Amino acid sequence: MIPRIVSITGVKEWHDGALRSIDDSLVGEEPLEIRVGGEPISVTMRTPGHDLELAPGFLFTEGLIASREQIASVRHDSDSRQSGANRVCVELARGTVLDMEASRRNFYATSSCGVCGKASIDAVHLHNILPLETDRTIDPETLCRLPELMREAQHVFSRTGALHAAGLFNLNGELQLLREDVGRHNAVDKVVGWALLNDLVPLSDSLLMVSGRSGFEIVQKALVAGIPVLASVSAPSDLAVKLARKFNMTLVGFLRGRRFVVYSGAGRLSSAPMLRAG
Amino acid sequence: MIPRIVSITGVKEWHDGALRSIDDSLVGEEPLEIRVGGEPISVTMRTPGHDLELAPGFLFTEGLIASREQIASVRHDSDSRQSGANRVCVELARGTVLDMEASRRNFYATSSCGVCGKASIDAVHLHNILPLETDRTIDPETLCRLPELMREAQHVFSRTGALHAAGLFNLNGELQLLREDVGRHNAVDKVVGWALLNDLVPLSDSLLMVSGRSGFEIVQKALVAGIPVLASVSAPSDLAVKLARKFNMTLVGFLRGRRFVVYSGAGRLSSAPMLRAG
Repeated sequence: MIPRIVSITGVKEWHDGALRSIDDSLVGEEPLEIRVGGEPISVTMRTPGHDLELAPGFLFTEGLIASREQIASVRHDSDSRQSGANRVCVELARGTVLDMEASRRNFYATSSCGVCGKASIDAVHLHNILPLETDRTIDPETLCRLPELMREAQHVFSRTGALHAAGLFNLNGELQLLREDVGRHNAVDKVVGWALLNDLVPLSDSLLMVSGRSGFEIVQKALVAGIPVLASVSAPSDLAVKLARKFNMTLVGFLRGRRFVVYSGAGRLSSAPMLRAG
Repeated sequence: MIPRIVSITGVKEWHDGALRSIDDSLVGEEPLEIRVGGEPISVTMRTPGHDLELAPGFLFTEGLIASREQIASVRHDSDSRQSGANRVCVELARGTVLDMEASRRNFYATSSCGVCGKASIDAVHLHNILPLETDRTIDPETLCRLPELMREAQHVFSRTGALHAAGLFNLNGELQLLREDVGRHNAVDKVVGWALLNDLVPLSDSLLMVSGRSGFEIVQKALVAGIPVLASVSAPSDLAVKLARKFNMTLVGFLRGRRFVVYSGAGRLSSAPMLRAG
């Protein structure tokens, strides 16, 4: 059973002058503490569920670990009382040291970072990203089918209207995995963590679709996982586009109905669509 | 002039089988480093503009400072070369010490936090929040007008489709200030920072409206600023509702057309609307 993703609570609905009591489904949001070797590394607000994927995914996409082999175990904290469900303990393989400095270089990947003594723009360098390996193409008609496939899989979303989703597809447009979270970046970390634990990284023949916007951090996380195609239903930021172009990722936005915008890597589209004058 | 909020770039539009080149507006996203007394405190991805409001707003809503008087000066870094526009230096008033411990207690307020050695759920306690002072009410008809007023003020949003907005209204529904950002929390910090610098905190007679969802951190930031009414066009999380109820904040969601949902503090609605049976 999936842990508490939604909770029901009594609320008031105002409609055209009248107020009535109704029950409403709310998306769950709780802090998750990630510990590595007993040391607290981060606290992130997330929707409970798939925590054992989220933690490795976070460590990997933020550059603190470089491979599956560096993880010896991932488990919920069984020692603490109530907060055990909100604390994940990661043990590293013998000889593995957490690359905190790499993390600091990657630091600006998190769009809402907290208070960190050594965070500094001067220390920011992109690393940990390998060239995208795929030479496969993607059919535009396949892209058009993704939003509907996402919607069908997003049962929770329709209940609460407040969950972000990240869907991992193969390049034929078949859904491999869907994860949801109150934070878009967490949904992506859950997907990547799942792939990491199943030895599927780099995800060279995969496509990631996210609800909402694709900012810098989403592109960065997808690149670290080796995903060549990223699609979203809304717009990317300028920095997201710059990063995608630098690594020749195919970045698609405004994917709705039979229209989308390609911000980077249009050469990966198959079917050689006719290029009309602007 | 407002700094670069949007940039124009050539992209490809796919529409029903045809690909053509068009120009597209992208929302700006760049890292902002906040330094206090020369020490780097945080790096956050934000849309450039109103940085000198964002930095004090962040320090205040995260609990690192408690009042306007603790700030001696806020300026962009003039010493560095290119990155000067992306670094804000805050000097504290004589005798003021940054309350880093308070910040760590508040730490889970940031939904996408990075790598912070001392972050720990055990250290989390809500503080720095005073009881909401207002005994004023708000007319539901006033609430219904807010989305349209927000839309009219959001010129940038319509161009890029990727910006979050936070609008500060008085309880008569008059817009006082609108700020936009690629991050919803940043838009709120810009609003609160503006109010702090103008000695308007606590914002006891104000209403905050945000685009999208209202998660825990948005409720927390509004509470620190003393705002009694928070409205959004989408759904809150369960933790956001719990926090709002604890402090009797009026929390409104799904504000669209002539309908909205009240999750907390319904007693602040005026016009005594008839309560119908569910």
